[in-house]
Amino acid sequence: MNFKIRPATKEDCKGISRMIMELAVYVKMPDQVKISHEELERDGFCQNPFFECLVAEVPEENKSTEGFTLVGYAFYFYTYSTWKGRSVYLEDLYVMPEFRGNGIGKGLLSKVAEVGKKKQCVRLQMSVFDWNTPSRDFYAAKGAQDLTESEGWHFIRFDNQSLDNLANEAPKD
Amino acid sequence: MNFKIRPATKEDCKGISRMIMELAVYVKMPDQVKISHEELERDGFCQNPFFECLVAEVPEENKSTEGFTLVGYAFYFYTYSTWKGRSVYLEDLYVMPEFRGNGIGKGLLSKVAEVGKKKQCVRLQMSVFDWNTPSRDFYAAKGAQDLTESEGWHFIRFDNQSLDNLANEAPKD
Repeated sequence: MNFKIRPATKEDCKGISRMIMELAVYVKMPDQVKISHEELERDGFCQNPFFECLVAEVPEENKSTEGFTLVGYAFYFYTYSTWKGRSVYLEDLYVMPEFRGNGIGKGLLSKVAEVGKKKQCVRLQMSVFDWNTPSRDFYAAKGAQDLTESEGWHFIRFDNQSLDNLANEAPKD
Repeated sequence: MNFKIRPATKEDCKGISRMIMELAVYVKMPDQVKISHEELERDGFCQNPFFECLVAEVPEENKSTEGFTLVGYAFYFYTYSTWKGRSVYLEDLYVMPEFRGNGIGKGLLSKVAEVGKKKQCVRLQMSVFDWNTPSRDFYAAKGAQDLTESEGWHFIRFDNQSLDNLANEAPKD
């Protein structure tokens, strides 16, 4: 299938927002999505953007059954290891179900790796659910390591009240 | 004990670099550190910095047995959730052993939470080793959730040859 991968523009944010929700439905957490396309426009297309995004687009004649031509996206940002330096973190990788099996996911992933290498990143990282065997197998087949299994890394989060409590206890300048 | 927490300057990078190595020794991976203070200077103090850092400083009269006044640091950057938006990620939190028990670690953590809230971040995240019970207990006592335990998140990485292979397979524009 003919498809093109290109950097997202501000005008793509509605389409990205639709696919963010589709992915959340796939991972069984649709009620977790609190972000709007206006917030994506604000945070991704400003002076120091919080993220970057690639989209996969098909020609009009291959559009989805619902009429969409944006059929996948890779949402990423830059992080930093105090041991190794610049890294790129892939937050989301998604291809609409009816377009899978055409190399689009692989193309998006490789393109993020290429963008990262151009920025002198030495790592590409991401997180997956333990039950998400298709994704884990997809990454493993391409040479990724599972660091939770091999080194015992756990993922920790403060949010809501626990984040407010912490911030309120900060020493005064 | 008297201490001050302030944003790091370029001149602090040598001291931060020393403490990065001390922390790597503590987590039993000193041979993993490949980053120099010159790289920290370049990547943290440029137009679009890859990270931010807070340092904890004690007065000259309380300096360490080896003569250091920088006794702790918190190294962080901004990430982004496609469900919740702006987030802050704490890569390293470290206090020199002889200065522990004085609230410096707690002060650094709270200050990162405060900085994050000012930037409208809704999450503060980090990773810890499963064997690092002191750190896991420290974060849990302050209200953090372990997402690897509660939701099954695994941490995945491409680096070295697997990253090069991916990048080389990227579709041409």
